[in-house]
Amino acid sequence: MAMIGVLGGMGPAATVDFMGKLVALTPARRDQDHLPVLVAHLPHVPDRSSHIVGDGPDPMPHLLRGISLLNDARAALIAVPSNTSHHWHGQMQAASAAPVLHIATICVARAAVIDAAPVMVLASRGTMRSGFYQRALSAAGIAALAPDERTQALVDSSIADVKGAHLSPAVAALGSAILRARAAGARAVILGCTELPIAAQALSDLGVTLIDSTLELAREAVRRAIDAGWQQRDLRDAEVTA
Amino acid sequence: MAMIGVLGGMGPAATVDFMGKLVALTPARRDQDHLPVLVAHLPHVPDRSSHIVGDGPDPMPHLLRGISLLNDARAALIAVPSNTSHHWHGQMQAASAAPVLHIATICVARAAVIDAAPVMVLASRGTMRSGFYQRALSAAGIAALAPDERTQALVDSSIADVKGAHLSPAVAALGSAILRARAAGARAVILGCTELPIAAQALSDLGVTLIDSTLELAREAVRRAIDAGWQQRDLRDAEVTA
Repeated sequence: MAMIGVLGGMGPAATVDFMGKLVALTPARRDQDHLPVLVAHLPHVPDRSSHIVGDGPDPMPHLLRGISLLNDARAALIAVPSNTSHHWHGQMQAASAAPVLHIATICVARAAVIDAAPVMVLASRGTMRSGFYQRALSAAGIAALAPDERTQALVDSSIADVKGAHLSPAVAALGSAILRARAAGARAVILGCTELPIAAQALSDLGVTLIDSTLELAREAVRRAIDAGWQQRDLRDAEVTA
Repeated sequence: MAMIGVLGGMGPAATVDFMGKLVALTPARRDQDHLPVLVAHLPHVPDRSSHIVGDGPDPMPHLLRGISLLNDARAALIAVPSNTSHHWHGQMQAASAAPVLHIATICVARAAVIDAAPVMVLASRGTMRSGFYQRALSAAGIAALAPDERTQALVDSSIADVKGAHLSPAVAALGSAILRARAAGARAVILGCTELPIAAQALSDLGVTLIDSTLELAREAVRRAIDAGWQQRDLRDAEVTA
């Protein structure tokens, strides 16, 4: 039995959102049509953004411990529903026998398909400083706009409010950030932090195409798992090897 | 680091609901205040109810494989957000070093606190045939009413529709079943199948106290984990042993 591994808890509500999207995206009439998943929900991992932009403790050993747990349990494909953690994607992949999806590569591929440049990435300061989104957009030849300081502050505030379970101010701050992105000329916005789609659920259409990094990661994980034949449609008890 | 283990995927949407409740019930201002959880989301486990009432394949080897996976990864407390699976609670506990919470014991303790007898349990046919709810209610001295065949058929239909992602008919069938329970004299209804709280979300108050087995299980898991000191409020990088 092949399982999708999820390195989650960063943050917790975002992982629940990811799991909900994974389940909703799987074509199924009954439990047994769904995909097996192992979720290592590890919210104690030190703040990723604080380490990249400041002097917070290093999350990398914790991330690698999660990757190791998932590999030990024989997860065969790993998704990490936390954008900022992808600053360490190279190290996670190097430590993992299972392929680790890259959330930014997937979102940028989506941006290329919808052809709505210029694109603005809204993400944590750690993700912005790391630069992996900017490099992926540039490699794909997609014009990108950088958020200004006021827009970034609104995004920071929205992320912190989702993590603290204050949804109303999170929605308001994200709405303002998206309107600023549109005013700056963006035709599409990548919600490049998995807290932001939670705030975006309560937004009206603001005239900008939103790319939901949680949804895109879930879609890619489901697509790969189904392509690999992990959906167990013909269930026989004889398959049990335990 | 102590983790809550979740043997889930039975069904998938119910596990997402359980995880959402676990996260929402944890007092937290930031990611690091949350509890570490390992979720073995194993939707391929053969249908529990079909085996108990009919001739479906035996889910027990699959359940024990999940319990083993969680123990191997050092989960220290196990929750199973599937009522019918508790037919095998004794075998799961015997195979597990970590304590396995019993969803029916927890829901019956809640029924005792709210003191709203008589109680009717709405659950799968497998759970009803197994009889563990009836025994727990009887041991607690709580008067119970059994659903009639028409009510049970509505419950079956609601469960199947949640599993098949048909929410509107699931809500309608559960609403009818609850009204029949009230008409039969029930003052409280235990939603003794983790699909039912998903349907109940869209119901108005029908004048009967509802005990949500998913919520009660999540509450007990959070309470035990916090009592055991698993909430890591003072995070130091030096704690990493990996």
